[in-house]
Amino acid sequence: MPKLKIKPGVSPFPMPVAIVGALVNDRPNFMTVAWFNRLNGNPPIWGLAIGKKAYTLEGIRANKTFSINIPNVNLIDKADYCGIVSGRDVDKSKLFKVFYGDLESVPMIEECPLSLECRVFDIIELPRTTLVLAEILAAYTEEQYLSEGKLDIEKINPFVFSQPDNKYWVVGTMVADAFSIGKALK
Amino acid sequence: MPKLKIKPGVSPFPMPVAIVGALVNDRPNFMTVAWFNRLNGNPPIWGLAIGKKAYTLEGIRANKTFSINIPNVNLIDKADYCGIVSGRDVDKSKLFKVFYGDLESVPMIEECPLSLECRVFDIIELPRTTLVLAEILAAYTEEQYLSEGKLDIEKINPFVFSQPDNKYWVVGTMVADAFSIGKALK
Repeated sequence: MPKLKIKPGVSPFPMPVAIVGALVNDRPNFMTVAWFNRLNGNPPIWGLAIGKKAYTLEGIRANKTFSINIPNVNLIDKADYCGIVSGRDVDKSKLFKVFYGDLESVPMIEECPLSLECRVFDIIELPRTTLVLAEILAAYTEEQYLSEGKLDIEKINPFVFSQPDNKYWVVGTMVADAFSIGKALK
Repeated sequence: MPKLKIKPGVSPFPMPVAIVGALVNDRPNFMTVAWFNRLNGNPPIWGLAIGKKAYTLEGIRANKTFSINIPNVNLIDKADYCGIVSGRDVDKSKLFKVFYGDLESVPMIEECPLSLECRVFDIIELPRTTLVLAEILAAYTEEQYLSEGKLDIEKINPFVFSQPDNKYWVVGTMVADAFSIGKALK
């Protein structure tokens, strides 16, 4: 089939979804992000692109700490809500049960299968977003999300986001083992 | 349920998968990455974390150009292979049908539903990886992956990668419209 050259501003791949938590003006606030990923293994560093005007970003800049929470499909409406409304206009502090780990400045979401306590590793200004590099200090989960002591993505039951259609999807069938199926081509 | 504090080096969320293409010592080479995402909308900038010793990274540093190719499930074995073997040891230049767009220095994969021509926007050194920020110059696809002129994730049929179990999964059922389902909570 012939290739079509299309506009470069596309991102048609499944993106993970997380809810970022931070204290802003002494109140927990939450915003949803999809432009993020892990970037370094040891120490664990993740990168998150956040709109420069985001209210949550004020808290991240002020405290240098925040949380990343991975929601499951039961939280899809609240996660979407946190991506629609700003903490500047609406008090989102009561939307979830909030818990704290080692740091008083890091509100985390009890309903989420996984919550990460983060400290700012670096902040990089991009043209229209701010790339926050976060060192993960601790992770919090529950026994129900583990299999043989390890986090189990099927039990976590996360969802992904796609553009440009702006849809959420569950994770489907497991189709292959990574670092394994390709060995047949050696 | 009580929260358990676990080791912070976890990443149990569905990660997208891409195959990076670059000329290294004048030969196309391909490597698979999962630690990447879009980071800025306009201009379109993506960030990819690549192991510092990766052979492909030599080509990216030398040419300042490379490609990002989104594979579908039909390419899962080749994508996995590109994440297992290094171009230092194996010639991967014949693994795919290679095509070129505007830039002679950017080999792209014909079999992939989407290929992006990229120029290095910035390079940031992290402790064990190199974060390559890429400006997307052009995107190439085929008619069969479009619906009403827009890329259609169901037609693209990509897959995601999970850790720590190291599995690949297809994208499952569409469960909600983003920027929509959350409005009910307003």
